[in-house]
Amino acid sequence: MISENQLVERTGRAIPSIRGRGGFDGVRLGIGDDAALVAPGRGREWVLTCDQFLEGVHFFGRIHPADSVGYKALARATSDIAAMGGRPRLFLLALAIPASRTGVWFDGFLRGMGRAARALGVRLAGGDMTKSAKVCINITVLGEIEPGLAVTRAGARPGDHIYVSGRLGRAHLGLELVRRGLGRRAQLRDLVQPHLYPRIQLKLGEWLAAHRVPSAMMDISDGLSTDLGRLCAASHVGARVYEARIPTVAIPSFAAARLRGRNMKALQMALHGGDDYGLLFTVAPRNARRLARAPEFRDLMPIGEITGGRRILLVAREGSSKPLRQRGWDPFRKS
Amino acid sequence: MISENQLVERTGRAIPSIRGRGGFDGVRLGIGDDAALVAPGRGREWVLTCDQFLEGVHFFGRIHPADSVGYKALARATSDIAAMGGRPRLFLLALAIPASRTGVWFDGFLRGMGRAARALGVRLAGGDMTKSAKVCINITVLGEIEPGLAVTRAGARPGDHIYVSGRLGRAHLGLELVRRGLGRRAQLRDLVQPHLYPRIQLKLGEWLAAHRVPSAMMDISDGLSTDLGRLCAASHVGARVYEARIPTVAIPSFAAARLRGRNMKALQMALHGGDDYGLLFTVAPRNARRLARAPEFRDLMPIGEITGGRRILLVAREGSSKPLRQRGWDPFRKS
Repeated sequence: MISENQLVERTGRAIPSIRGRGGFDGVRLGIGDDAALVAPGRGREWVLTCDQFLEGVHFFGRIHPADSVGYKALARATSDIAAMGGRPRLFLLALAIPASRTGVWFDGFLRGMGRAARALGVRLAGGDMTKSAKVCINITVLGEIEPGLAVTRAGARPGDHIYVSGRLGRAHLGLELVRRGLGRRAQLRDLVQPHLYPRIQLKLGEWLAAHRVPSAMMDISDGLSTDLGRLCAASHVGARVYEARIPTVAIPSFAAARLRGRNMKALQMALHGGDDYGLLFTVAPRNARRLARAPEFRDLMPIGEITGGRRILLVAREGSSKPLRQRGWDPFRKS
Repeated sequence: MISENQLVERTGRAIPSIRGRGGFDGVRLGIGDDAALVAPGRGREWVLTCDQFLEGVHFFGRIHPADSVGYKALARATSDIAAMGGRPRLFLLALAIPASRTGVWFDGFLRGMGRAARALGVRLAGGDMTKSAKVCINITVLGEIEPGLAVTRAGARPGDHIYVSGRLGRAHLGLELVRRGLGRRAQLRDLVQPHLYPRIQLKLGEWLAAHRVPSAMMDISDGLSTDLGRLCAASHVGARVYEARIPTVAIPSFAAARLRGRNMKALQMALHGGDDYGLLFTVAPRNARRLARAPEFRDLMPIGEITGGRRILLVAREGSSKPLRQRGWDPFRKS
């Protein structure tokens, strides 16, 4: 019979962890007590965030491999640290799983999360384990940053350029292919990776913050239309983005043949598809030149500019403009 | 139609919160961005913990009032800070609820959590909100402590006295009454309070740590038998506890008449019943005298002593002793 203590033990072995009296800088006490003891490095403060990843809402046991669930749960939570410009350091894992998932599934889950932890440079410092009818995951991540460097959503000013990093809609395309049972086709495998194992823009986020380039920044987790709306609301500004500048995915014809419907176009996926975890940030014109030294500069695309007022407009290729509705992911909206 | 943004807004209004650029000492940025920015006070470090509270596992929508769910979710998470001797300061709320619970139920939930936040002296600094078929709550709590003062589970030594704070089994008795639909009877109301609105031993935990009295400490969340087992395992010691010293609840006869069965005796509830959140701690004989100045000293009961070896024994009233099995709450064990 499985016990909570055994599951905690397996977790600590499979994921880079700080156990007991740590020795890992900043952590005096890790897994195995009532709480962890953590201090940020000298002259640093903590960036703190949490994120849920729930079966039946964010993933489906039937179509998503266990190691993707483990990988993505940690990656998407860590993305919020990147979005502030912080360097992720530690995380807590709160996990609830059915007894039926404590065997092979749990091993796959831990393998995926362990791989993400190594890729992201974070270590497990504590958590909570219990049972439930469906898998519930909550990840709390702590990152470090120098006081004053963190980039919030609230600093965008009229005239600032709006940038995104990487193509948008890649994760949405992957999701649609996985939903149709096409995730394991050899010729489609590259297209589903961004959905199953998203890449987090840690280096870029940290570089941008350290060089004080952006006026505002966030990650695109719920779709450009929704997240740009949030950035503009926090900054009390509007925006104008150009359809022709949005970096969309190229959908190969053999995949396009499987994807029919209004929301299956590359532009729609780019505007409203969530889960890409690219960075969305704004840059004052006087700082634009500094951007050229950014890591992966070639993947940065200026898609428009911040405006006065509060309207967010999409300028079509022929020049007409219309309001960009927030049609990204909202868990409480019926799709 | 409800949106995630609206629920976040209602939460921030109902619960003592740090929103935007905080001004609350130690917090530069609270609710409303990708992450919070937090620094412990000068010469302090963070005590960090998380705890899940799930519908169908830890509570039942049918029998537990919404405000108890909100209250208890925060109280039990904060108890882990008390158990280290820390002072709780901030928390993150990760919440998933069905759309059907976004109205009256959600208001009750927030009211309960707000009351707990004021009683415990903590403020909401961020979180995550999504939907799910059942209510999933995860609370991350940060407390402050002076480096070197935190009390772990690992310091108990043979000869140390074992103490518990308050009567044990009170929450279990309350649970059994609530399960039988008796929670609202006027004459039973006082008996169900410890189950619905547990009191957390913050002052005691902080005092004990500040005066360096305990050699090891934890809170009793899963039952004395299980939690004493964990403390002894972490300290590599054994223990002997005396049945006659265990502070049990007095079960009034009109309640006892409703409670039949092997586990319905006061001693069984005290040994194996979870959710009391009293403190369990060990004190070296040379420090025992200092304990007399502890807050609520009268509620502290010495129940036995730490021994060499690894056995945990229960000494009966007539003097015979037998192993104390860990029969407290384990989510993966069938009850």
